[in-house]
Amino acid sequence: VSVAEVCVVPALAGQGGYPVRIGPGATGTLPGDLPAWAPAHAYALVSDEHVMPLHGVALAERLRSRGLRVETFEIRAGEEHKTRAEWGRLTDALLARGIGRDSAVLALGGGVVGDLAGFVAATYMRGVPVIQIPTTLLAMVDASVGGKTGVDTPAGKNLVGAFHAPVAVVADTDLLASLSAAHLRAGLAEALKHGLVADTGYLHRTEAEMGRLLAADAEALAALVLRSVEIKAGVVGRDPHERGERRMLNFGHTLGHALETVTGYAIQHGHAVALGMVLEAQVGEWLGVTRPGTAARVGTLVRSAGLPYRLPEGLDPERLLAATKHDKKARRGLVEYALLRGPGEADPGESGRWSRPVPDHVVLAVLETAGSATPSGESDS
Amino acid sequence: VSVAEVCVVPALAGQGGYPVRIGPGATGTLPGDLPAWAPAHAYALVSDEHVMPLHGVALAERLRSRGLRVETFEIRAGEEHKTRAEWGRLTDALLARGIGRDSAVLALGGGVVGDLAGFVAATYMRGVPVIQIPTTLLAMVDASVGGKTGVDTPAGKNLVGAFHAPVAVVADTDLLASLSAAHLRAGLAEALKHGLVADTGYLHRTEAEMGRLLAADAEALAALVLRSVEIKAGVVGRDPHERGERRMLNFGHTLGHALETVTGYAIQHGHAVALGMVLEAQVGEWLGVTRPGTAARVGTLVRSAGLPYRLPEGLDPERLLAATKHDKKARRGLVEYALLRGPGEADPGESGRWSRPVPDHVVLAVLETAGSATPSGESDS
Repeated sequence: VSVAEVCVVPALAGQGGYPVRIGPGATGTLPGDLPAWAPAHAYALVSDEHVMPLHGVALAERLRSRGLRVETFEIRAGEEHKTRAEWGRLTDALLARGIGRDSAVLALGGGVVGDLAGFVAATYMRGVPVIQIPTTLLAMVDASVGGKTGVDTPAGKNLVGAFHAPVAVVADTDLLASLSAAHLRAGLAEALKHGLVADTGYLHRTEAEMGRLLAADAEALAALVLRSVEIKAGVVGRDPHERGERRMLNFGHTLGHALETVTGYAIQHGHAVALGMVLEAQVGEWLGVTRPGTAARVGTLVRSAGLPYRLPEGLDPERLLAATKHDKKARRGLVEYALLRGPGEADPGESGRWSRPVPDHVVLAVLETAGSATPSGESDS
Repeated sequence: VSVAEVCVVPALAGQGGYPVRIGPGATGTLPGDLPAWAPAHAYALVSDEHVMPLHGVALAERLRSRGLRVETFEIRAGEEHKTRAEWGRLTDALLARGIGRDSAVLALGGGVVGDLAGFVAATYMRGVPVIQIPTTLLAMVDASVGGKTGVDTPAGKNLVGAFHAPVAVVADTDLLASLSAAHLRAGLAEALKHGLVADTGYLHRTEAEMGRLLAADAEALAALVLRSVEIKAGVVGRDPHERGERRMLNFGHTLGHALETVTGYAIQHGHAVALGMVLEAQVGEWLGVTRPGTAARVGTLVRSAGLPYRLPEGLDPERLLAATKHDKKARRGLVEYALLRGPGEADPGESGRWSRPVPDHVVLAVLETAGSATPSGESDS
């Protein structure tokens, strides 16, 4: 297994592309690469309380030993801290340590660190460069690529943020060795999403490799990250600001975000998206947009990765529906869903919108039957 | 006097240009223009407690009578409220009123409203369009054009923000009729800056028209706004993200911002910039970058507009110097100053940086003598 590189080239001219380096030991060349990617007076290495002792301290030392000025900043772990308050605290900490506009941010961690540190970089003195160094499978296959940054508000997920493309992404798959099974599965959910919206072959390969993937096999994981990043780089390169095609990547996310919100983020993002994909495939079938049998196939895939495929008991469908109303994807007051035509094929929607408004009664009908839904052909025992 | 239009065309391809419409009654065509500039489900009209009753309520009614959905949001007036807290409150108010991603923000007011509402637009659901409708001379000649948005932190001015180009700017010079003399002068300061960095002819004309300008003559003001916007549109079009040439527009602003910070914004932005220009011209002369006599000329101009040209008594030079240290223009720990070569000509600096690091002792020397400095050839009586 060696290090591979994918280049994200946004369709907007003048923005330049950025490299996504993937593979075991990919962070090894950071001391040499950083000054080329983002020449800076100082580097602000941001990580959370778990990742900082695990990988952050050592990385900072390695960079310092090569003469770079590195200041480290530790934030609290967990989606519940991805807030405006934490963004303000981190910004003030950078200011207090004399980080100037000629600095760059290194975001070392999972999706929360990437989103929060990325948003600090996007808004610090009207924007400084950020290098994304994802340490979870979910962040490697999805969150670190594409420039989405932001924080949550009490009204919902990622309601405040900015598009701020990184100058580089370094996905060192060696860092996945310490990942928990739950985090591994969360990443697999987004990888399955990439297959479901764009690549049947990838879907089949992922299914066939599921055993090795769940056992954290290094080679299988590196191949997975590479293919997911290739797919995502293609989509976000053609539509960096999500005016159309990029919306397909929101499959599973309208109900997924609502699940996270109503459970107070007790359910992990990837797990919520997995269940969201099952539910939204059912929504698509109800509307006649998605081929019959697709939801059952999604359910089987999600289940094979050990991810949730049924609504938790006691979850009120009306509350879940209400939580979708603040979703960013809402248009003219109607909530929009990115749907599938079938496994491996996103629905382009009307006039290439890549999403569709869905009436409340359809969503409610799906949610009300989902508690007892089972993947096709399988008993629920 | 008729309505003129300048187009800002950023050098970054794919970003498109935006119109700046200038003249008496320029807001009259907004009901027809808005849906073309920013087709939106709803328009969030943001203004402050002074401007909302004066112009905001009537504008909202006019837009509503043409079938547009307009929600109004009032913020507190004054630079001391241009904070992250106010940004958060305004964001939450938009969310609570169901403003979706298919909405647009109308920023009606002075620089504070434009910066704050612009930053809300930049970060609301990762960015919604903003239309800048400046109501002060300062905002018309300077702040509303160029896409700078942001808020202050306790450490300094505009330390948090984003570049978020408006989709259009409408400078209705009729709105200046109710402007106070102090606000009028504040705008003249930025207009003088445009002349000082880029256009000797404009400088002479402004000087010749000073009487009419200070008397708020409609025609003279409209001509002033037009020429200032032409100059600014050229500069920010070539360098939208302030990587070089745009820095010339920071002339007077390093010490100007410090003056605002140490006085707790008791001194208005334009007035602080006026004094900042006098001081920074002296800094340039000390360094041998600025032709001798320039500072005296700047002092005369500033004084003719009724703007401050001497440090207020009791202002500690060391505190002022310390307040420059957090300035965004700092590089490698050294604070950078945009300087003049002479009246009408900005200093390109070394290798086209359009700014220079200035040693502390030079700044201190200037500040320590500035209390007693007088424009050349004039007595101080």
